[in-house]
Amino acid sequence: MAEERLTFRATRWFNTEDPPTPESLAGKVVALHAFQMLCPGCVSHGLPQARRIASTFSAEHVAVVGLHTVFEHHEVMTPDALEVFIHEYGWAFPIGVDEPSSTGHIPRTMAAYMMQGTPSLLLFDAGGRLRWHQFGRPDDMAVGAQIAGLLAEGVDGKAGHATDDAAKLGCDAEGCPVPPR
Amino acid sequence: MAEERLTFRATRWFNTEDPPTPESLAGKVVALHAFQMLCPGCVSHGLPQARRIASTFSAEHVAVVGLHTVFEHHEVMTPDALEVFIHEYGWAFPIGVDEPSSTGHIPRTMAAYMMQGTPSLLLFDAGGRLRWHQFGRPDDMAVGAQIAGLLAEGVDGKAGHATDDAAKLGCDAEGCPVPPR
Amino acid sequence: MAEERLTFRATRWFNTEDPPTPESLAGKVVALHAFQMLCPGCVSHGLPQARRIASTFSAEHVAVVGLHTVFEHHEVMTPDALEVFIHEYGWAFPIGVDEPSSTGHIPRTMAAYMMQGTPSLLLFDAGGRLRWHQFGRPDDMAVGAQIAGLLAEGVDGKAGHATDDAAKLGCDAEGCPVPPR
Amino acid sequence: MAEERLTFRATRWFNTEDPPTPESLAGKVVALHAFQMLCPGCVSHGLPQARRIASTFSAEHVAVVGLHTVFEHHEVMTPDALEVFIHEYGWAFPIGVDEPSSTGHIPRTMAAYMMQGTPSLLLFDAGGRLRWHQFGRPDDMAVGAQIAGLLAEGVDGKAGHATDDAAKLGCDAEGCPVPPR
Repeated sequence: MAEERLTFRATRWFNTEDPPTPESLAGKVVALHAFQMLCPGCVSHGLPQARRIASTFSAEHVAVVGLHTVFEHHEVMTPDALEVFIHEYGWAFPIGVDEPSSTGHIPRTMAAYMMQGTPSLLLFDAGGRLRWHQFGRPDDMAVGAQIAGLLAEGVDGKAGHATDDAAKLGCDAEGCPVPPR
Repeated sequence: MAEERLTFRATRWFNTEDPPTPESLAGKVVALHAFQMLCPGCVSHGLPQARRIASTFSAEHVAVVGLHTVFEHHEVMTPDALEVFIHEYGWAFPIGVDEPSSTGHIPRTMAAYMMQGTPSLLLFDAGGRLRWHQFGRPDDMAVGAQIAGLLAEGVDGKAGHATDDAAKLGCDAEGCPVPPR
Repeated sequence: MAEERLTFRATRWFNTEDPPTPESLAGKVVALHAFQMLCPGCVSHGLPQARRIASTFSAEHVAVVGLHTVFEHHEVMTPDALEVFIHEYGWAFPIGVDEPSSTGHIPRTMAAYMMQGTPSLLLFDAGGRLRWHQFGRPDDMAVGAQIAGLLAEGVDGKAGHATDDAAKLGCDAEGCPVPPR
Repeated sequence: MAEERLTFRATRWFNTEDPPTPESLAGKVVALHAFQMLCPGCVSHGLPQARRIASTFSAEHVAVVGLHTVFEHHEVMTPDALEVFIHEYGWAFPIGVDEPSSTGHIPRTMAAYMMQGTPSLLLFDAGGRLRWHQFGRPDDMAVGAQIAGLLAEGVDGKAGHATDDAAKLGCDAEGCPVPPR
């Protein structure tokens, strides 16, 4: 069964001297962006979108965390290569290296959430619960709406009109799909 | 002093047999998009964004209303010309023709809200209060966030963490600016 | 049979005090862009491409001529409306109003070349012969190549490797299609 | 003094079983695209443009050759990493690995042509002479025009109106700059 709480295992971090942990992120909405440095859709869509999340929302309330979830070509998408990639593109949010599995090619965090591939965007509410899980290219308006919906809930995840909001965007107990166009 | 409640005066409507009124929209978040058919920024940015609002959010909870606020070249941007423009571009949401002023070139709704020009996007909460007023080209993520923030408030505009949310996006009693990038 | 020589009939001109004629354009490669001001593909693709032709090639050797070929909604796409459209978008090359037909809705120049619709781009060599006729959205690289190919021919249209060049781009006696991708 | 003839030294080739040589390319116009796999402008602009060159012009007359000119971060932009990059992005034209220098960080072909960085696009006429050398992001229309101009010259580089053409695009004996906009 897929993990439903905020958790990640990283062997190395970039862009931060104080690596994020589920505990240090408690109380914030978290946007976890899983990517591979040689994945075209990550470079053209996912990572620029993660950057826009970081520039649109206050860092005090929304944390953007990148995770390098290498599940193929491990020999060339190394942490050292990732470091150069981050430098050349100027990605500025904290980025961790997903911990390799001891038994397969899918790294641990990626496996825990049963991600379908890269890019994947996972949104967690301020209480650390997974609320949105998207593989592919969600559009900016839907992402902005989902994050603001979670911000409106606060830490307990039930305040105000939160339940109603979720319904308005088509979420159910299993997650929140992108509204059909 | 600028109007702060949902109101508009239109002399003709397109794309609807049942023209929207402040009363018929009560309980919904309203996105009012003011444009001119020969304004390049409206054609390339504002109107496509209004269309994306309509496709991202449920019509049950968010109403998109276009308003043709002609303040120059009135002789060629006529309602008949607008009708052709709407048909050729396939804009599908209700669009009204802002009522001309009897004393100046700025039409009545545009003047009431002291809009700075076109395109302008105004967001009203479910209680009919003006909460966001943007001239120019706000980006999709910020627009999606603002609308979802208003959705989370509900009709009374104070439920849940609404006040906190607004603060997170940099709003104050006067309105909500686009977060600085 | 479709016209194969440079010719156009315009009732009014904008952006020029000295309206172009086939005679005044002799010796230049001519890019004739036919559009309607309320045609979405003309506004987003055709007219910006015509502008790029004008900025890429020297006006001494390549002339860009716009032609407002209204074949529908004549009552709102009037010359006066066109004038505002040109002003608002800042199109800077000479633009003529295709002469209305006395017997149908297709204006004279559009009918003479049997254009399929708007946007259409017609390229004429320096000798005034029609060499490329495209309805729709040809890409910039192909357009740049076609124009340069015509420039290389010179006035007689047969110099150098012209015939070979045409073949390289897939032209035949009937015209030059965009190379398949 | 910078090299002015078609020449390249590559230690490894991808996408071809028959590596191109100056001899095998004789008689064709050659577009040599120099890039680094972790250079953002190469990924977003240069390589897609090289792909469009290959799809716009006939392979019989225009050869597109990619060259991985690594001048920084050699340890991660290895040939093995390049192979994965090529596979993931689906670049289909022949790509060589520029031969490392024994004395500095700039590889041999890059040094020979005194390239200013990546992306760089070099165009050679059918006679193997360097005719256009651009660092950065030339636009498609100018690139299409330059290539077609060279195609029109033929092998001897002097046929027809070639000299005139070059003048029309602002070339001189030293090379051909992008026309000013």
